[in-house]
Amino acid sequence: MSETTSVKSLIEPTGAVVPSTVPTHWYNLAADLPEPCPPALNPGTQEPLGPDDLAPLFPMGLIMQEVSTEREVEIPQTVREIYALWRPSPLIRAHRLERALGTPAKIFYKYEGVSPAGSHKPNTAVAQAYYNAVEGTTKLTTETGAGQWGASLSFACSLLGLDCEVWQVRSSYDQKPYRRFQMETYGGVCHPSPSDLTESGRAMLAADPDTTGSLGMAISEAVEVAAQDPNTHYALGSVLNHVLLHQSVIGIEAMDQLDQIGERADVIFGCAGGGSNLAGLTFPFIGRNVREGTSTQIVACEPAACPSLTQGEYRYDHGDVAGLTPLLKMHTLGKDFVPLPIHAGGLRYHGMAPMVSHTLNLGLMTAIAVEQEDAFAAGVEFARAEGIIPAPESTHAVAGAIARARAATTDETILIGLSGNGVLDLTAYADYV
Amino acid sequence: MSETTSVKSLIEPTGAVVPSTVPTHWYNLAADLPEPCPPALNPGTQEPLGPDDLAPLFPMGLIMQEVSTEREVEIPQTVREIYALWRPSPLIRAHRLERALGTPAKIFYKYEGVSPAGSHKPNTAVAQAYYNAVEGTTKLTTETGAGQWGASLSFACSLLGLDCEVWQVRSSYDQKPYRRFQMETYGGVCHPSPSDLTESGRAMLAADPDTTGSLGMAISEAVEVAAQDPNTHYALGSVLNHVLLHQSVIGIEAMDQLDQIGERADVIFGCAGGGSNLAGLTFPFIGRNVREGTSTQIVACEPAACPSLTQGEYRYDHGDVAGLTPLLKMHTLGKDFVPLPIHAGGLRYHGMAPMVSHTLNLGLMTAIAVEQEDAFAAGVEFARAEGIIPAPESTHAVAGAIARARAATTDETILIGLSGNGVLDLTAYADYV
Repeated sequence: MSETTSVKSLIEPTGAVVPSTVPTHWYNLAADLPEPCPPALNPGTQEPLGPDDLAPLFPMGLIMQEVSTEREVEIPQTVREIYALWRPSPLIRAHRLERALGTPAKIFYKYEGVSPAGSHKPNTAVAQAYYNAVEGTTKLTTETGAGQWGASLSFACSLLGLDCEVWQVRSSYDQKPYRRFQMETYGGVCHPSPSDLTESGRAMLAADPDTTGSLGMAISEAVEVAAQDPNTHYALGSVLNHVLLHQSVIGIEAMDQLDQIGERADVIFGCAGGGSNLAGLTFPFIGRNVREGTSTQIVACEPAACPSLTQGEYRYDHGDVAGLTPLLKMHTLGKDFVPLPIHAGGLRYHGMAPMVSHTLNLGLMTAIAVEQEDAFAAGVEFARAEGIIPAPESTHAVAGAIARARAATTDETILIGLSGNGVLDLTAYADYV
Repeated sequence: MSETTSVKSLIEPTGAVVPSTVPTHWYNLAADLPEPCPPALNPGTQEPLGPDDLAPLFPMGLIMQEVSTEREVEIPQTVREIYALWRPSPLIRAHRLERALGTPAKIFYKYEGVSPAGSHKPNTAVAQAYYNAVEGTTKLTTETGAGQWGASLSFACSLLGLDCEVWQVRSSYDQKPYRRFQMETYGGVCHPSPSDLTESGRAMLAADPDTTGSLGMAISEAVEVAAQDPNTHYALGSVLNHVLLHQSVIGIEAMDQLDQIGERADVIFGCAGGGSNLAGLTFPFIGRNVREGTSTQIVACEPAACPSLTQGEYRYDHGDVAGLTPLLKMHTLGKDFVPLPIHAGGLRYHGMAPMVSHTLNLGLMTAIAVEQEDAFAAGVEFARAEGIIPAPESTHAVAGAIARARAATTDETILIGLSGNGVLDLTAYADYV
């Protein structure tokens, strides 16, 4: 079998039976926003970005999604087949946590930790790898924090026949070798960032040889490598509109699952780093609020150590440190902000997805900051009651929800976005038990 | 809330909705065996063991299951509610692996790695913790190899309000600290074995201070501690009849899931260490073979480094090194056999469940031994095609199934027991990629 035939066959559906409960379309909040999201700007001209500006980094299928204002985008059957390996992800009522808290509130969690990579990240990794494979890309580069994104993209590339090269924030690379082994098991290649493999990496190392790294630095390296080879593209794990679009399967399913049992979410807690988990979970609910006048409250939970939504400025900024990416209007701590090496590596990003930032700015969601200690205490409480050990990122949402449930005086319905499991973050838990 | 009330409330059902696809009864192969399984013997008198002999270690609810010959045993509602956190576990057709192998065979896998502990072990851990809690036990002790059993029992004890103390085989304790952190996150306590905390441990250390440990040694320590306190009981993760009974949910579900799509398994591959995963997956099919004359072939896959079924003698032997446990008729390498510290720690047991041994002896199943290198090669091949990284234990079954599928000339149906995921065993994979 030739290489070409082999790659082609991997993007074709296998004929697997996909349950009807796996969404057929992604949901795009852009269709329901009362005001359009401010556009991304070309960093040179400061003019709104056109599709051609993005072509060196992304396939046209994803670029069109990036600028789309259609409410629904059909999910390719090959992507649905791969989703069906773990989707629909479970929506579980936390009866034992409710009992432990003695709360009258009803607590549900939507659990994305059942994916092969252990988090919500494969929802977009599979889609991105698919659209790249269809257009002939042979390799994807990316950055990763805790490693969940890098592992997810390696997984997706393996199933769809692409090579995968990952730059991982050095503090996580050193703390969490298991994630790298996970990438390598899927055939991916992983470097600590900053590395001496790129111009931007070498410049950052020259400026601070002992830097623990940041997502912004790692993005610069991955983008630089992708831009140099026409067959190599770049994949971003959060922030961009098309990523948020793919993650909407979380919220679409959660809404359906609640509808099935006659429940309505009064309030939703989701953790926020770059914004993809939060948006995926909550945008379908925000869209319904806008369209139908429902009043589901949305609470973004971010780490106090990296508080872009609660402390950042809302302005145009670069997505990376070297300034290679477009200018994005977002809540930002500044592209040079280097957060403490907290355990929730996936939340250590200086900015926030423009669509999430815009939504917050319009008053369609609220935000809180959670201290790491409180987040882990909530994670341990959750684990001991429900049996699932939440990812450090997810514990921020759990903390918000537990505080709300403790204060509840009615049987309000609380939905937690449990974006991943903490199995590969157990060294972090060891500090808190 | 008093301690008593608290424990009592944890054993009561919460009222959670349990899907009808979660089994209501466990299946007991003893009811269908053409000849009864040879009884366990009292190590002192060499007479068949009575319920009273087991009372110092186990609650009466489990003892009655140990000696039961009823075909069906009802699953308590509290246990079903906890099962529903991850059950029914998925049965997935491995379309992408089939395509990669170019086989005409249909390959399915029953995936137990979705449980909170990442393996099949919680199926019995929850049941054992439940029956102990009901009868007033306040603490359980146990042994563990790779740590999947210790983590599973810690999880179950946490949800049901029991303390949990675990002795982990030293080679795994040193290799795999994440499992210990997992136990601790659930509130469990974990010691390396042999330890200086018990008489048997001190004797083993005196005999060989550098021993890497074995499950047989760790069992001696856990049993010794449990026997000293009437409120402390012992829990075994495999081998005994009641453990195999609880695991039957795997095979019951798999048979139902295949029936639902009009498939019949021609051959089933399951990994075999103590025998609980293998029995849980295959006994319902063996029972049907016996009752209805179906001809599903069963292949036990054990590590070449610890080949009790393919190389052991079939005779009475102790379950532990110190000789504290009853004598069990089983395929055994001898209670003093110390297997190499292979990565599949859960398969490093000198003996095999009496019921599995008897079944093999009656010709109701077959067995093969798999080299570690071949097992991991199969695990990597599976991961890159299907996206799930199998536990090192499970890779033995995957290797057997892949060899069968490569040789297949018809569209026969192959079922793999994927007993767990390898997320906490990625250091092992790192040696093979």
